[in-house]
Amino acid sequence: MKVRILRLGHRYSRDRRISTHVGLVARAFGADELLMDVGDKQLEKTLSSIVREWGGEFRIKFIKNWKSYVRNFDGDKIHLTMYGINVNDCITSIRASAKDKLIIIGGQKVPSGLYGMVDYNVSLGGQPHSEVAALAVFLDRLFEGKELGREFNGRKRIIPQERGKMVIDG
Amino acid sequence: MKVRILRLGHRYSRDRRISTHVGLVARAFGADELLMDVGDKQLEKTLSSIVREWGGEFRIKFIKNWKSYVRNFDGDKIHLTMYGINVNDCITSIRASAKDKLIIIGGQKVPSGLYGMVDYNVSLGGQPHSEVAALAVFLDRLFEGKELGREFNGRKRIIPQERGKMVIDG
Repeated sequence: MKVRILRLGHRYSRDRRISTHVGLVARAFGADELLMDVGDKQLEKTLSSIVREWGGEFRIKFIKNWKSYVRNFDGDKIHLTMYGINVNDCITSIRASAKDKLIIIGGQKVPSGLYGMVDYNVSLGGQPHSEVAALAVFLDRLFEGKELGREFNGRKRIIPQERGKMVIDG
Repeated sequence: MKVRILRLGHRYSRDRRISTHVGLVARAFGADELLMDVGDKQLEKTLSSIVREWGGEFRIKFIKNWKSYVRNFDGDKIHLTMYGINVNDCITSIRASAKDKLIIIGGQKVPSGLYGMVDYNVSLGGQPHSEVAALAVFLDRLFEGKELGREFNGRKRIIPQERGKMVIDG
């Protein structure tokens, strides 16, 4: 099962730090690819350098026409939104399918047509919070925590410590 | 069990959006209070207005001396850090205690003394990602997903929908 994240409506310098967190979370929590409808060279550079140092196969890609991409995606399409069905009430049925997943995260304004284009509109609680948090918790639920035990085989890696830091580099 | 979040090293306009997400996530995922070692009126205003509209008892507070606060905290002190023990390997023992929790999230530079001042240094995977994600997933694990079913009794609330949006206001 491949998992792709589609981030809509990125606004360059204003959103760069949040979009960077979205990309890092996508990678660290087991997704394969970040797709953006707005290209941002700086963001691509940051994420690529993390992959070079820390490993894994994570990619970032710009797509021109996100609507046709979503329409033609062969797999389960999941839109994360505070207005959707609580993840507690739908994660079992989402996990039951082995199909590839497309997880969509909107920006400030989500085109209302999106709600009808997907298989699931999923909320991580109906309270205002953060697309970064929504993505992380959704992926953690989807993979049932196993994603945090995954090996990335990077040049850099951390040896978990009860106190202090240990990083292997090289 | 009360859960407090301590956010260290906030840097005003540079960190405001990330710290806002930290505060919103703290509230939405069931924490009672956000403590900051750096006061920020704008951030306080944003979070207070969310509480007024969306309900709950969440508070934000500035503390002058975080070291003495941590030292004197009566409960389990948990520092979220990529260098710590994987949450998968310690969450059961953390959940087993009914004591209050202080969850500490560092900024860019965490004073190295912190690692020795806490009961647990916990990683949400040893990969670079996001303090917003780390906090959300940790709270979701601590409360076992039940936090997302909580009622906030706010003026505004969302009625979950399979398609589209429904917000009650008033």
